[in-house]
Formats: sequence, C-alpha cells, structure tokens
Amino acid sequence: MTALAEIVNLPAEAIPPRAPGLLLFLGDVMEAGYAKTAFGLRDWAAERCVGEWALPGGRVSAGLLPLMPREAVARGAGALVIGVANVGGVIPFSWVPALLEALAAGLDIVSGLHVKLRDVPDLAEAADRLGRRLIDVRTPPADIPIASGVRRTGRRILTVGTDCALGKKYAALALAQGLQDRNVDAEFRGTGQTGIMISGDGIPIDAVVVDFIAGAAEMLSPAAAAAHVDVIEGQGSLFHPAYAAVSLGLLHGSQPDLFIVCHDPGRNEILGYPGFPLPSIEAVIAQTVALGRLTSPTIRCAGVSLNTGALDADEAETVMAETEARLALPTADPMRRGPRFERLLDACLAS
Amino acid sequence: MTALAEIVNLPAEAIPPRAPGLLLFLGDVMEAGYAKTAFGLRDWAAERCVGEWALPGGRVSAGLLPLMPREAVARGAGALVIGVANVGGVIPFSWVPALLEALAAGLDIVSGLHVKLRDVPDLAEAADRLGRRLIDVRTPPADIPIASGVRRTGRRILTVGTDCALGKKYAALALAQGLQDRNVDAEFRGTGQTGIMISGDGIPIDAVVVDFIAGAAEMLSPAAAAAHVDVIEGQGSLFHPAYAAVSLGLLHGSQPDLFIVCHDPGRNEILGYPGFPLPSIEAVIAQTVALGRLTSPTIRCAGVSLNTGALDADEAETVMAETEARLALPTADPMRRGPRFERLLDACLAS
Repeated sequence: MTALAEIVNLPAEAIPPRAPGLLLFLGDVMEAGYAKTAFGLRDWAAERCVGEWALPGGRVSAGLLPLMPREAVARGAGALVIGVANVGGVIPFSWVPALLEALAAGLDIVSGLHVKLRDVPDLAEAADRLGRRLIDVRTPPADIPIASGVRRTGRRILTVGTDCALGKKYAALALAQGLQDRNVDAEFRGTGQTGIMISGDGIPIDAVVVDFIAGAAEMLSPAAAAAHVDVIEGQGSLFHPAYAAVSLGLLHGSQPDLFIVCHDPGRNEILGYPGFPLPSIEAVIAQTVALGRLTSPTIRCAGVSLNTGALDADEAETVMAETEARLALPTADPMRRGPRFERLLDACLAS
Repeated sequence: MTALAEIVNLPAEAIPPRAPGLLLFLGDVMEAGYAKTAFGLRDWAAERCVGEWALPGGRVSAGLLPLMPREAVARGAGALVIGVANVGGVIPFSWVPALLEALAAGLDIVSGLHVKLRDVPDLAEAADRLGRRLIDVRTPPADIPIASGVRRTGRRILTVGTDCALGKKYAALALAQGLQDRNVDAEFRGTGQTGIMISGDGIPIDAVVVDFIAGAAEMLSPAAAAAHVDVIEGQGSLFHPAYAAVSLGLLHGSQPDLFIVCHDPGRNEILGYPGFPLPSIEAVIAQTVALGRLTSPTIRCAGVSLNTGALDADEAETVMAETEARLALPTADPMRRGPRFERLLDACLAS
C-alpha cells in the first residue's frame, strides 16, 4: 500500500502539516469528459473541495465556488489538484503560469497525469525554492513483488466492467461506503489516479510494469481479518483490445471472493474502438469466473451495477428490473440509493 | 521495433562500428538455471560467441572457450554479454571489477537484467571515460502507443505455453529458421532479453507498463506483406498466477493467425508455484482461442511443441506420438529436427 506520503518518498513525519482542503484545477479544457478527476473528487470527497479554478477559455465546471489560489488558501486549501486530463496526459505550457501561481500562494500540487510534475523544470525549481510538494499519484511504489498466488485471509470484492469508463470506481466507492454505513469493516482500494486521490491511498495499477501487475494487486489488498472487506476499484475490461491485460492482472492478484459487473446499458461498442461490440454481462461473468478461479477457486458474481445516469427514474427502474430478472442477480445503480442498492449490499455480505 | 541502437537512444550513425563477436559473461553463478541467456546465445547465435568468462567460484559453463576480455577482443569480440541472472536481477558487487576490466579491454557491455548498467556509478563513469556503450536490452522503447486493435496484414504465429521456461523462445527461433530454410519470408520477433540479444531486435515485453503491453505487441509485429510470417516469442502462460497478464497482452496485440502450444511433458506444477497444477495442452488451446479471438477472430492452434530434452529418443518419440494422436495436431520437439518438425512447419504454412 502506498500512502501519498510514501509516493513522494518522504517519511510522514518529515512532511509539514498542510491544510486538508483541495482546490480543483480545471485548466482550459473544453469537454467534461476530460474532467473525470474533478468530478470524482466533487462527488466523493466533497468535504475537502473548497473550490475550483478554471483558466480563461475553459468551458468545464464542477459546480464549485470559483476561487483563485490565494482565496482557496484563505478558505483552507493545502493543495491544488489537477482535475483534468489533456489529450496525451501532458501539462500544456498554458497551465504552467497558473501552477506557479498556486505554488507561490502556498499550495502543493497533486497530479495523476502520465507526465511527472517534477519533469517540468519551472515547477520543480519553484517547488524546491518555496518548500512545496509536487505529488504524482500515478507513480507506483518501487518495491512491488512478483505475485505469489498464495491465498490470503479477509474478503475481497472487485468491480469489473463490460468496458472502461462506465462506473467501476463509483460502484466500488458506493459499495464500500454502503458497507461502512452498516458498520462492516470495509475499505475502498483505489487503483486509478482519481480513486487514489479520493481515498488518499492505493496503487495506480495501469502504471505498473506488466511483470508486476498481479503482485501490485496482491500488495493493494493484503491479508486482513476474516470479516474485513476490501472493495477494489476495477480497471478496463477482459474484452478490451488494449487493456484486457490490466483487468486480468488485477483479477488474478486481487483474488476476489465476489465480483460486481459494471455496465452502461446505453453503450453498444467498446469506447473508442469501433467494430468491437460491447460484451454481454453474461459473457463478462463467464470470462471473469473462468479466469479468476485460477487464484480464487470459489469466485462468483454477486450482482450487477448499472450506470443509468442517462435515463430517467422510470427508465432506469425498467432496465434494472429487466437485468435482474434475466440474470437472477441483484441489480442496482449505486448512484440511486434505495432497496435495490441494499439488496446489492446484502449480496456482497452473503458467504 | 527497437534495434539495439535505438534502445541506447543513439542514432545508428553515431555508434562507432564494433567487432560483432560476443564474450559471454557467466559471473560466479552456481546453477545452470541462471544461465539461460548464455545458453540461448550459444545455441542460436553460435557464430557470434567467441568465448565465455566465468569468475572464480562460478560453476556454470556454456562449453565455449574460456577467455579473458583482452583475449576475447583479440578474437573479434566487441561486447561482453551478461549471460546469467542473479536472484533479483541485480549486478552483485563481485561482478563490478570484472565488468570494469571488460570496459578497459575495449568491450561494450550488454545486459538484460532488471537493474540498469548505467545505475552502477562505477560502470557509468568508466564507460563514459572510455567511450564504451552500456546497452540494457530490457529497456522498452519510449514511444509505445496504446493498442488500436485494428487488424493488420501479414501472417503472425505466436508460441504460447503451459508455463514459463519450457521452450517458447527455442520453438519460435526454430520455426522461424525452418520457415526461412524453405525460403519463406519469415522473421523471429523477440520479446525477452535473450531473444532480443539473439536477433538483435525486439521489445522486452515484460518490462512494458501494463497499459501499453498490447500496443507494444502491435508495434513488435507490424503490418507486412501478405506472405510475410512473423514468428513471435511467447511469454508466460495464461494459467500463470503472476504472469498471465503478460501472456494476454501479448496475445491480444500480436493478433496471431496461428499459435503453437509449448509444453514440457515432465512438468506437473507451475514452476515455483506449488499447488498450481500445470494446465493441460487442451486447456491452453481452449483458453487461447477464447481470449485471442477478440483481436484475431479466426485464431487456431497449428500444433504442439514438446520440450523432450530430459528424454531419450525413443521416449521422446512415444510422448510426441501420443500427444499427436490425442490432440490430432502436429507435434514435434523443434530441437529434434526430422519429419515431425517438417509437419509442424507445414501446419504453420496452411491457410
């Protein structure tokens, strides 16, 4: 497990205390699809988000209070979080003056981009001079072992998907929270930059060298008390032409007792891969069991999480009821709490 | 594709010509199992191996002429190749004086270890001072794209396995050579350090960040003329608790038309993973087709490669005949040439 403190290779006691608040940086992006990190923090770490900062020309808002860095510091911000991704995961020149202004105002900078903050010389120089931290959460720990395959104690639930970007993180966060609300000893295990920022912990699984991916997943959800439940954020899909290896390594290393299939009923093709049809939920269940039983012999599907954000309440209920009847598995949209979600939680606790 | 010249980030014209011969460094290792790279070079690049060099205390020999670095240079060596791996893939202190002696004698150093030669300060200093190259073949290229999944022209054959370390590289090398001997436009595509050193080209697939592994496999075996055949060195096994993700990413990106299952009839468990039974050849065929058809819809098994090195000729023939009868697939040991191997080549050319 890699806390943020370890990611930046500083012992925790060497890091001066900072205010816990976050200023969400939206840059100058034009499309909401690039702002997943900002939306995730707004939805799941609202109490830490003091405001947002978009540059002139930007057209995306997370609906938070617009603040400049000094105003954000006055309201309790300790760090600016880059809440958007640019095409290619780079830091454009147009962002650098703003990031320097944030450092000057007293903020650390947290990034989940592929490029490292410290690789931008102006940022590295200013951070060192001002005593600020540059925290790249997409840096995996250095000491990941090769997977052992040895079964470990505790219970683990993995969210898997018919595709990328359809709700595996939100489902895992909602399930972990729902279990905690029932006083279950449950923990969310983040595997992507947004999940790591929300929970303050985790491993950026898609940035791990492939030889070590199952080992990283073992490290992420270690042996625990018998009643402890880790809810692990899934990545990719076993049916994705580019990312299936990520999904398989995470599945094998996680050794989940149970998995939840996440699906968007409005999607027909793999996102960005025309000609690759979306697999059925049934196919994902069968493939996950066929592959997952290598390291978790009794693995089974506990239920289905549907992303019905594009549907009204009646349409959502119809598709959830149809799916539940067809598969004979509890089906809910974790963003629509209620009896369906409670039944999904029941299924996560069934032995 | 990454030629050695690109791996070290030097334009080809900037690299002074060196003698092509290799001195195989055996260090002080005690077990032959750690000398796979030396044995592979001896068996597949014999014309370039001028001799071997073991340190006092070492107990492994590749059966080549024992030479000191200056003697090797006199016999046409241009580089010392680290032919052994230590536990952990590190460069032990006990090797450093010897490697410095090799640099002083005029040799470059080539390594496939996880640790980088340049990260050993004494080696970096000496190489820079003397104008020698430190070549780490386990460094993937920097410009690997995310896989597109788009079908490409040319034919591709992948060797897959029931486990690691049972003959996938030797099978791919033998098949490529056998096809070339029939005047087929065939090429071996190396995916591990030894295969890359033998062929002078390739991508160290297990060192790639997992998000990019299928993209690396696409890059390794690019679109080609319709009659061209790439024979791709497989890695790991879909049934390996630590490395299945490597195998799946390589399978998806390679888009093989055909695959050959490599198996050691004497092995019952995954090497180093007690309690994980070796899968049957039948199970590997079914799983490879089930997963591989995502990017190669007509993928099929062309035959079986058995590693019968531990058997005498009669025993080997018996197990090959039994396997062929059971599976109704051409079965050969590529290290035992003859009619069986020719039938396996026939199967690789069938459309």
